[in-house]
Amino acid sequence: VTGRTETICVVGLGLMGGSLALALREASGAHTRIVAVTRSAEVLQQALAVGAIDRGSLDLADGVSGAHTVILAAPVRAILRLLPGVGEFAARGTLLLDLGSSKAQICAAMADLPDGLQPVGGHPMCGKEVAGFASAEADLFRDRPFVLCPLPRTDPEALNRAFTLARSIGARPLVLDPAVHDRAVAGISHLPYAAAIALINCVAQADDPIAWSLASSGFRDTSRLASSEVEMMLDIMLTNRVAVIDWMEQYAAQFRELMAALAAGDEMRLRELLAGAQRTRAGRIS
Amino acid sequence: VTGRTETICVVGLGLMGGSLALALREASGAHTRIVAVTRSAEVLQQALAVGAIDRGSLDLADGVSGAHTVILAAPVRAILRLLPGVGEFAARGTLLLDLGSSKAQICAAMADLPDGLQPVGGHPMCGKEVAGFASAEADLFRDRPFVLCPLPRTDPEALNRAFTLARSIGARPLVLDPAVHDRAVAGISHLPYAAAIALINCVAQADDPIAWSLASSGFRDTSRLASSEVEMMLDIMLTNRVAVIDWMEQYAAQFRELMAALAAGDEMRLRELLAGAQRTRAGRIS
Repeated sequence: VTGRTETICVVGLGLMGGSLALALREASGAHTRIVAVTRSAEVLQQALAVGAIDRGSLDLADGVSGAHTVILAAPVRAILRLLPGVGEFAARGTLLLDLGSSKAQICAAMADLPDGLQPVGGHPMCGKEVAGFASAEADLFRDRPFVLCPLPRTDPEALNRAFTLARSIGARPLVLDPAVHDRAVAGISHLPYAAAIALINCVAQADDPIAWSLASSGFRDTSRLASSEVEMMLDIMLTNRVAVIDWMEQYAAQFRELMAALAAGDEMRLRELLAGAQRTRAGRIS
Repeated sequence: VTGRTETICVVGLGLMGGSLALALREASGAHTRIVAVTRSAEVLQQALAVGAIDRGSLDLADGVSGAHTVILAAPVRAILRLLPGVGEFAARGTLLLDLGSSKAQICAAMADLPDGLQPVGGHPMCGKEVAGFASAEADLFRDRPFVLCPLPRTDPEALNRAFTLARSIGARPLVLDPAVHDRAVAGISHLPYAAAIALINCVAQADDPIAWSLASSGFRDTSRLASSEVEMMLDIMLTNRVAVIDWMEQYAAQFRELMAALAAGDEMRLRELLAGAQRTRAGRIS
């Protein structure tokens, strides 16, 4: 694209879209023009003020129509609602990428887009439990996996553009099948969220002010994901329901096994379960 | 104690005992002498080298006999094993404090100590998932609750000394009944640990390298407690078994309720559970 201006349109300027705009701004030269579409004039003003974007629009057709690349940064079901409009307004050859946290339903919907569009499902594996443009940061994607799910119809050249874009913001692009992605993130992201929700609701139901007053960093960290944005997580859980339920059943079985060993006072089995988890985590999580 | 030297003997120089020695050293003047007893000559050398202690001993009788205050900083069942020896070697009037994470069994055992001793169960609500003197830090207790469980036999003056000691290291002392303490920490500390263990063991059993490779900060934080020292946690779980099992049952019920709402695709109920947890956490955890 040397010599001509490339326009990237980011739809949504929350934590993910805002961070992406900031990261693209840092990564790209004067030949990249960043346009954003949101429903909030105030957020557009903020993004313009910090130089994250070149132009803002409250209108999807207006933002999308002149772009070479469109990136949808919204909750999963909002992305599903946006797709037909993007299909209608985007020019032929446009690379369409999204940042939604479950991929099977989005990729299935992308298959119905007009032929000329080049869709690639995307999911950068990063986040914070705080939402909104005010929490956005250019470094959010750095050294994090960025899953890409091309469709059978996607041109290799378009996938290559998505790959280059992910690399340009410091992420590690990784091509995965949507179902493989959804099953994996159900285990390492949606299941931990469910565990955090159950933990908070359990302590809430006990209604013990002393318990809350003694809560320390261990409780804070274990429950952190329960502070995630509700609408975003609701969309994720509902669109990835089958995989999440499957992991939840396996988790419940592990939890029951731990409970049984403790209830029986079976010290040897209990030590195995605790030491096994400690060893696994030491080997897997840095 | 102005005008005379006070000797404090810390038994155990792991994360908690080491941090306590460092904190006492910072808080106290030249009239406080800090003695440590451990099983490791190497750790004693390290503690002497950084000036955390004035004297080290590998012998419990030697360390305890000249002390005005003895603090047991070891796993719960190790504390239970140490108590008879401390009862034998400590001088009349000695304040005996411990830092064990469950209190009912320790306080019950303290009741059998010789009359002259002044026992107070203790539990500073802080910690890290890293163990050992190398991880110790003087600020560990700062602004954290420090639970104190006096026995019916404990002189108010001795409780007052424990209170002053907790204050001197920056902690917030708080007097609680052992059973009330054990029930509260089962919910906000031992239950989250169990949830973290089940989470790691669940993902381990699935044996999906892609899942591990996509794990991000959310998984890392939710599972952090699974890296806690196994022997310490085993002692806690086994000595606080009844309260922990009770919380685990309530947690399993909350988890099942969440799973049922998701399996049924009951969006309204699911939103209630997620939003309720988010709201509760925002109000309770800073």
